[in-house]
Amino acid sequence: MKAALWYNRKDVRIEETKDPIISSDIVKVKVKWCGICGSDLHEYLAGPILIPVEHPHPLSKTTAPVILGHEFSGEVVEIGENVKNIKVGDRVVGEPMVVCGKCPACLEGKYNLCWSVGAYGICGTGGGFAEYASLPERFIHKIPNELPFDKAALVEPITVGMHSIDRANFKIGETALVLGAGPIGLGTIECLKAAGASFVACLQRKSVRQEYAKNAGADIILDPNEVDIPSTIKKLTGGKGVDAVFETTGAESCFLAGLNSLKSDGTLVVTSIWEDSIKLNPNLFVFTEKKIVGTMGYRNNYPSTISLMGNGKIKADGWITKKIHLDDLVKEGFEILAGIEKKKHIKILVTPDKNLL
Amino acid sequence: MKAALWYNRKDVRIEETKDPIISSDIVKVKVKWCGICGSDLHEYLAGPILIPVEHPHPLSKTTAPVILGHEFSGEVVEIGENVKNIKVGDRVVGEPMVVCGKCPACLEGKYNLCWSVGAYGICGTGGGFAEYASLPERFIHKIPNELPFDKAALVEPITVGMHSIDRANFKIGETALVLGAGPIGLGTIECLKAAGASFVACLQRKSVRQEYAKNAGADIILDPNEVDIPSTIKKLTGGKGVDAVFETTGAESCFLAGLNSLKSDGTLVVTSIWEDSIKLNPNLFVFTEKKIVGTMGYRNNYPSTISLMGNGKIKADGWITKKIHLDDLVKEGFEILAGIEKKKHIKILVTPDKNLL
Ligand SMILES: [Zn+2]
Ligand SMILES: [Zn+2]
Ligand SMILES: [Zn+2]
Ligand SMILES: [Zn+2]
Repeated sequence: MKAALWYNRKDVRIEETKDPIISSDIVKVKVKWCGICGSDLHEYLAGPILIPVEHPHPLSKTTAPVILGHEFSGEVVEIGENVKNIKVGDRVVGEPMVVCGKCPACLEGKYNLCWSVGAYGICGTGGGFAEYASLPERFIHKIPNELPFDKAALVEPITVGMHSIDRANFKIGETALVLGAGPIGLGTIECLKAAGASFVACLQRKSVRQEYAKNAGADIILDPNEVDIPSTIKKLTGGKGVDAVFETTGAESCFLAGLNSLKSDGTLVVTSIWEDSIKLNPNLFVFTEKKIVGTMGYRNNYPSTISLMGNGKIKADGWITKKIHLDDLVKEGFEILAGIEKKKHIKILVTPDKNLL
Repeated sequence: MKAALWYNRKDVRIEETKDPIISSDIVKVKVKWCGICGSDLHEYLAGPILIPVEHPHPLSKTTAPVILGHEFSGEVVEIGENVKNIKVGDRVVGEPMVVCGKCPACLEGKYNLCWSVGAYGICGTGGGFAEYASLPERFIHKIPNELPFDKAALVEPITVGMHSIDRANFKIGETALVLGAGPIGLGTIECLKAAGASFVACLQRKSVRQEYAKNAGADIILDPNEVDIPSTIKKLTGGKGVDAVFETTGAESCFLAGLNSLKSDGTLVVTSIWEDSIKLNPNLFVFTEKKIVGTMGYRNNYPSTISLMGNGKIKADGWITKKIHLDDLVKEGFEILAGIEKKKHIKILVTPDKNLL
């Protein structure tokens, strides 16, 4: 089959490779669409970050070259002999997890915190930028007919938002501030509205992303170059601050603005990955009993996202800003997302099938 | 009456002042014992910290001189006309809160986060280093006969531990690490054991406080000068780390050792007040989905502490390391706690009544 293989930084090749081998609980999927994620782009521009190069990943037992891509939808074409609830022809999305199933975290059901966790499409067990992808049955989720294959490729990034509002213990009627309107911020906004948030503000500097945030359901967009975020948020919430803040930017200034925009006993959920340490005075959360909570991917949230996207409670309208063929992944995908038009794009979707374009 | 008044840094005077005025819901208590708290000592050595000097506190409407002391027990001698459930002769402790009762935090029952919160014994409404103290009925709690007046003066600092394990959402059978074995650390250890913790470790450098931690119920005391805390804790917990860490030291190195000793999805509760910012890489809690939670004083926890101290589930044995008369507060209290023997002391109790010594 044809697939996109990461050989090295700035060296991703579209070439022939072996089809996935199907046995036991493995499901083989003919890929329809696979979204380009920030993590794919980072591996292309600055990797290896998570891609195993010198030491094989403990679960995949391989090193680069590896197939990239983890936000995929498609149709089941083959199943292993132990697969129970998935059949050939099913419309599905893949939950790109590679886990051991045996460590204490896995046994507690917190498989995203598996002690050997890997990412499908990065760690070497296959990926979605290919004609065929494969995952164990537990990570293959059926999608309803109302959810087209292209939108289904958005289930993955939106589920990150689903899990982070779960981590916030967010309740109907509460208020929120989302820091950043990239794909994770936008997904979080849509999930918050679906969760019954009474007010959702979004911090986003002037760019087309402000419109995307509005479109995703944000009630107000605040540019930190124009207003002081904490005092503006307090003014908008009767002096209190918001119940929850979602940090998706990885910037210290946003982290602190978010913490200071929270009400007492409110929760700051941090989704972003950090390049550097930040300076933080714990008094900022001690005196006011605030909570800071890390979140990483998702666990057990795929069914909710699929259901809410299927019945239209989560719309993700306007997310797909470009569709390209697998052959053009580097030039029309990575290079565009690294260039001057990057803010314009929410998701570029990739297909190995010329007929879908 | 006689009372200890803070005039200025290093200027606390024992002098005659007016008795508290009793009306409405106010209860007047003849003080038996009042413990010296770290915050009293800080006001003496380095104040004003929270004591109002230039601007009157919004609720007390006064400035220094103010009566110090907030960890007191005593007997009710007079009640206002609206007091319902407290009567003259009752044995009580005071919950030293000064709150507005009208702000959103108060109305949600989170009165320790009151927007105008003050501390009784600091903000100018009276204090426990005096012959008489007074508080509204809601902050006067009856104590059982099994709880002697001297031990009852320990209810306040132990309730800080009670609230912080509540903030951790700590459950029976879980494991914990307490950073520091000062009064708050020791109280937290006793509360954890009473809460059914299966394992409690304590970080404490070599000093008599290691014995106090052992006596409070810690299963193991670890000196960060002797062992690496995170790897030792992991070894002691089957590789996982503890469910909860309680930071009472205010030191960056302890904060980070605590965070790195947590299991995935575990909770670091921070009770300590900070003089400086710390350097923290959020990846330390993002990848492993850890939680950092601020805690400030207590709310609604006094009845539990009183009950558990009354029935002996929380013993606080050996806590009272010295008893002195109010006249000697500075020389035999503050100066001792500021001197070379400070680590030896858990609580020095002060009484205005010579007959109790
Ligand atoms: Zn992704
Ligand atoms: Zn595992
Ligand atoms: Zn105190
Ligand atoms: Zn209030």
